[in-house]
Amino acid sequence: MTDTAGPGPVDPDHDRHNARMKRLKVARDRLQARRTIERGLLIVHTGNGKGKSSAAFGMAMRAVGWGMRVAILQFVKGTWETGERQFFAALDSDLLSFESMGEGFTWDTQDRARDIAAARRGWERAQQLVLDPAIDFVILDELNIVLADDTLPFAEALEFLAARPLAKHLCVTGRGARAELVQLADLVTEFNEVKHPFAAGFAAQKGVEY
Amino acid sequence: MTDTAGPGPVDPDHDRHNARMKRLKVARDRLQARRTIERGLLIVHTGNGKGKSSAAFGMAMRAVGWGMRVAILQFVKGTWETGERQFFAALDSDLLSFESMGEGFTWDTQDRARDIAAARRGWERAQQLVLDPAIDFVILDELNIVLADDTLPFAEALEFLAARPLAKHLCVTGRGARAELVQLADLVTEFNEVKHPFAAGFAAQKGVEY
Repeated sequence: MTDTAGPGPVDPDHDRHNARMKRLKVARDRLQARRTIERGLLIVHTGNGKGKSSAAFGMAMRAVGWGMRVAILQFVKGTWETGERQFFAALDSDLLSFESMGEGFTWDTQDRARDIAAARRGWERAQQLVLDPAIDFVILDELNIVLADDTLPFAEALEFLAARPLAKHLCVTGRGARAELVQLADLVTEFNEVKHPFAAGFAAQKGVEY
Repeated sequence: MTDTAGPGPVDPDHDRHNARMKRLKVARDRLQARRTIERGLLIVHTGNGKGKSSAAFGMAMRAVGWGMRVAILQFVKGTWETGERQFFAALDSDLLSFESMGEGFTWDTQDRARDIAAARRGWERAQQLVLDPAIDFVILDELNIVLADDTLPFAEALEFLAARPLAKHLCVTGRGARAELVQLADLVTEFNEVKHPFAAGFAAQKGVEY
């Protein structure tokens, strides 16, 4: 902090605010000093609101910014054109890989056996990525969707995730996260829809929904 | 959809599932056909959970993937080193600009007059970006923070946002979004903290928190 801004005008409200912030800062520093554990986190983004995958992609960006290696694997979502796919392709970074293992939503495939086979292929790949010591951050996008109804057997996935290497962060997204996964996780955010443009008659728009 | 996977094994549960998905698909398509409005959305990310800024950055990436021009302006957050700052600097894209106008959290500055001046400078810049016809998507990161306690006068900001150009998307992030802003917005997601690693004694870690 430099002195270039000067002391500012005298204002008793400001003085009270500033004194309050000094006390808050002391309390925050004391708390922060007790937060010392560092290891890979199991992160879950769930809920019916928008932003679960976007927030995971934002973390991917953040990690790549620090030179970490990130792998994004999408379940469910197929090969249709999205902004994120084009962005990652253009980025062409050694630090980031992006793969889609899905064949679309189950109401599009309308084929349970096919959904099960796609989830299985995705899960085999997911395990490789999680076990690969060269990767620092793995994002399993929409994994919750295939776990919710056992398209992928939940017990098997939970056992693997509980025994995961703790040297890397792992983020699982998708609505309907199962309770045992939430219990196992270190960081869980629920994304709640307060207002959605679809309800007001908006189309899905580029840059926002895809 | 190709036929390469074959019809799969006969399973009455699968048949019921597939028939249910066919009906769901019809219902979804009917709904989708009524969603036709396209214009710039006012998006709000709020709540006490993690991911509000990350989700906005993820949308920025998505928009850049489609060749849209995106401007990110951070309030409150200062010049400290973060993964996103390094990522955007390395990206060096004509499609994306990233600026921080803040001087840190108010418990760090401990100077209300200085906070007010920084918010004012940020707001002047924000208005330029929103009014610039060359920009397709503007992200005002942490704006809610300075609106919550009128560090920036809320009435003034609300009036400007209500009269904003509808040709671009605008995303406002930060906890404590004010009710009139939520009312004005087209898309609002509340990020709720279910479980946070700080509470379990974890330090803030690279790639996750910054």
